[in-house]
Amino acid sequence: MTLIVEKYGGTSVADVERINSVADRVATTQSEGNDVVVVVSAMSGETNRLLEMADEIHPQASPREVDVLVSTGEQVTIALLTMALHHRNIEARSFTGAQVHIRTDSVHGKARILDIDAERIKKDLDKGRVVVVAGFQGADQEGNITTLGRGGSDTTAVALAAALKADECRIYTDVEGVFTADPRIVPEARRMDRVTVEEMLELASQGAKVLQTRSVEFAGKYKVRLRVLSSFIGGPGTIITYEENEMEQPVISGIAFNRDEAKLTIRGVPDEPGIAHRILGPIADANVNVDMIVQNVGDDDTTDMTFTVDRSDYEKSKQLLEKSANELKAQDVIGDDHIAKISAVGVGMRSHAGVATTMFQALSAEGINIQMISTSEIKISVVVDDKYVELAVRALHKAFELET
Amino acid sequence: MTLIVEKYGGTSVADVERINSVADRVATTQSEGNDVVVVVSAMSGETNRLLEMADEIHPQASPREVDVLVSTGEQVTIALLTMALHHRNIEARSFTGAQVHIRTDSVHGKARILDIDAERIKKDLDKGRVVVVAGFQGADQEGNITTLGRGGSDTTAVALAAALKADECRIYTDVEGVFTADPRIVPEARRMDRVTVEEMLELASQGAKVLQTRSVEFAGKYKVRLRVLSSFIGGPGTIITYEENEMEQPVISGIAFNRDEAKLTIRGVPDEPGIAHRILGPIADANVNVDMIVQNVGDDDTTDMTFTVDRSDYEKSKQLLEKSANELKAQDVIGDDHIAKISAVGVGMRSHAGVATTMFQALSAEGINIQMISTSEIKISVVVDDKYVELAVRALHKAFELET
Repeated sequence: MTLIVEKYGGTSVADVERINSVADRVATTQSEGNDVVVVVSAMSGETNRLLEMADEIHPQASPREVDVLVSTGEQVTIALLTMALHHRNIEARSFTGAQVHIRTDSVHGKARILDIDAERIKKDLDKGRVVVVAGFQGADQEGNITTLGRGGSDTTAVALAAALKADECRIYTDVEGVFTADPRIVPEARRMDRVTVEEMLELASQGAKVLQTRSVEFAGKYKVRLRVLSSFIGGPGTIITYEENEMEQPVISGIAFNRDEAKLTIRGVPDEPGIAHRILGPIADANVNVDMIVQNVGDDDTTDMTFTVDRSDYEKSKQLLEKSANELKAQDVIGDDHIAKISAVGVGMRSHAGVATTMFQALSAEGINIQMISTSEIKISVVVDDKYVELAVRALHKAFELET
Repeated sequence: MTLIVEKYGGTSVADVERINSVADRVATTQSEGNDVVVVVSAMSGETNRLLEMADEIHPQASPREVDVLVSTGEQVTIALLTMALHHRNIEARSFTGAQVHIRTDSVHGKARILDIDAERIKKDLDKGRVVVVAGFQGADQEGNITTLGRGGSDTTAVALAAALKADECRIYTDVEGVFTADPRIVPEARRMDRVTVEEMLELASQGAKVLQTRSVEFAGKYKVRLRVLSSFIGGPGTIITYEENEMEQPVISGIAFNRDEAKLTIRGVPDEPGIAHRILGPIADANVNVDMIVQNVGDDDTTDMTFTVDRSDYEKSKQLLEKSANELKAQDVIGDDHIAKISAVGVGMRSHAGVATTMFQALSAEGINIQMISTSEIKISVVVDDKYVELAVRALHKAFELET
C-alpha cells in the first residue's frame, strides 16, 4: 500500500464548493489504491477575519492567545472536509495538531516542530480511514496551542510525510507548480517539471511563495518526495528532486524576489573581535531571523554593519540595535523598510563564472542601484529599492533567457 | 482568597463590544479581591453559522466531526476575552476544555463530564491569573473532542466550581434571574430572590431556559452556591438555596413550559411482565431521554404505553418503537410532535393537597384538554396541544397568584 500525504491551502478550501472538490480529489487518490493523509489550512479569509476581531480588542495581542484564536481556522476546515468525505462514503476522521501530537517548541506564532507521534495516525490508516489533519498548528510540552507561522501547513504536511514515511507529499496550491519567476510579474515565466531541492530551498527562502522554506528544508532532510501542483487546474506540477548528477543543469533555474525584508545599519562601531556577536546576539535572542549580513571596515578603526530582517521584525530589531549602539558607543543606526531582494538561483552556477556579471549588467542597464550583495553556491542575491522589484525580475528573467 | 466562577453565555459575548464589557465585569470581580475563573460560550450566531456550513456539506454529519467543528466557537471567545483582559492589564490565560482535562464520555453532542483535573487551573490562579475556560466542551478518554449539548457551558461552570471548591458560581445570562414564569409570555411574572435547588431543578428540566438541568443537578450534588444574573442590567439575580427549613414556602414558586418534546404511544401490547423494559430498552440504548411515561391496561390483556422524548429524537424513537411493535405483535404506534408540557413547581406543594385541582380547573376553564399528567413531590406537569401553551401558562400564573 502506498501512502500519499496531500496538502490543500486556504484558497483550495475557500468555501463549501471548493471543499467538496478537494474531497473529490482525495477520493480519486484513495480509489487509485493509496492510503491518504490530508493536511488543510484555514479557509482563505478566515484567519484575517479572526485577526481583525483580535486587533479591535487588543492591537498587541498576546501571541499565545493569537494562536488559540487562529488555530480554530484549520479546525473548522478539517471537520468540514471530513464530513464531505463521509458524504462520499469514505471513512475518515479529523485531528487537530495537538491530537496527533505535533509537538513544537513554545515560540508562539512561529513554533518549530520537535516531534510527531505517527502511531495515532497509523492506527486510523490501518482501519482504511482517510486521516484529515489541521495544518499550521501543534502543541508545546505543556499542551499550549502553537502555530508554525506563515505557510506552516506545508511544514505540517512534509513533517507528517517524513514521520509516516509516505511515498509522496503533494502540496496543492493555486499555481501549477514552480515557475522560473512569478508569472504575475513575468508573463513569459515557465513551469519547471523538476527542480533540485537546493534550488527550491533558495527559491523558497528568496520569496517564491509556492512553498515555505522550512517545509523544503524538512523535505530535504528526510528525502521526502515532494510535488507542487494546482488544485484548480490539475497537471503534473513540479517535482522536487534529490539527484544532482544530471547531465545538463541550467546555469540559472529561476528568479525569486522578496519584499518582506527590511535593512538595518549600525555605523561607526569600534572594530574589535567579537563585535559582530555583540551586535547580532540580542537580535537572535529575540527570535529574529537575520538574513543577509554585510560588514565594511571604515578608515578610523570603526566598522559599519548592515543586515536584513523580516519586515515584521523591523521595529523591534531597530530598538534592540539602538540599545546596542548606545552600549557600544556607535555613531548611529539607520534603517530602511522599503527594500526588496532579488535572487538568481541555479545549481549550474557552481561551474559558471559570469553569472554575477550578467546580473549586475542587466540591472545597471535599467538604472537600478544595488544596495547589498550576497552569494551562496547556487544563488546570487541583491538588495534594491523596492520600487524596482518588477522591473528587476523581468530584466533578469530575460538576461538569463529563462523564457525558452 | 475567595474564588468566583463566572459564566457568560452567547448573547453576553455576542460581539467585540460585549466581550469588552464582560472583561470590565471580570475586572471588577477581581478588584474586589477574588480569584476568578471565567467560562464562556460561543459568540451568539457563531454555532449556527458553523452548522449551516456543515449542513450544506452533509445533512447528517457525523457527531464526532460536528463536535470538532462547533467547539471552535468557544475557542474563539476564550482567546478574545483573554486579550480584552490583557488590555486591562489583567494577567489571564485561556484554555480549551481538553486543555484543562474536562474528561467526558464519548457521546458526541451530549457528552457527560466524568472528571476534571483542577490542578492546571489552580497553578494559574496561584500566579494571580484569571483563567478563561471554553464552556460546552471536553475530551473523551481517547482525546476526541466532545460537546456537552445545549446549555453545556452552564454545566462546565458548575463542574469547575465544584472541582475547584469555588465560593460562588455566577451564571450571567440575558435575563435578570429566575422568574415565576417566562416574562415574554406572562408580563406580570416576578424575579425570585431565591429558589430552592429542587424547585430550580424542576423549573430547569421543565423548560425554564435560564439554567440547564444538568448544571443544576451538578450544583445540587456538590452544593455549589449558584447565582443566576444578567450581564446586561446587573442586579442581584436569583440565588439557588439548599436550606429547606424556611418558615413559609409558597405552594407554587413558578410555572414552566417545554415545547421541545414529542409524544409516542404504542397500542395493544400483550400485557406481560417485563414489557415496559422491552419497549423502552431500545430507546434508552439509543441514548434517547424518556421523560413522562404513562401506561394503561386495556380490557383484553393488552396495554397501551405513552411516553415523551426530546422532539429532536422523535423520528429516531418512532422508528425504534415501530420495530419493537413489530416484534411484540402490538397493534400500532402513534405519535404527536405538536405537544407542550406545562408544569407548576413548588416545594410547598408537599404539604398542600389542592394544587392539582386548582391546576385542572384553571385549564378546563380555558377549554384546554389535558393529554397526560405526571407528578413528583414538588411539581405537577401536564401535556397539552402546543397551540395552548401561552394561554395555559398565563392561566396557571394567575390561578396560583404568582404576580404578587
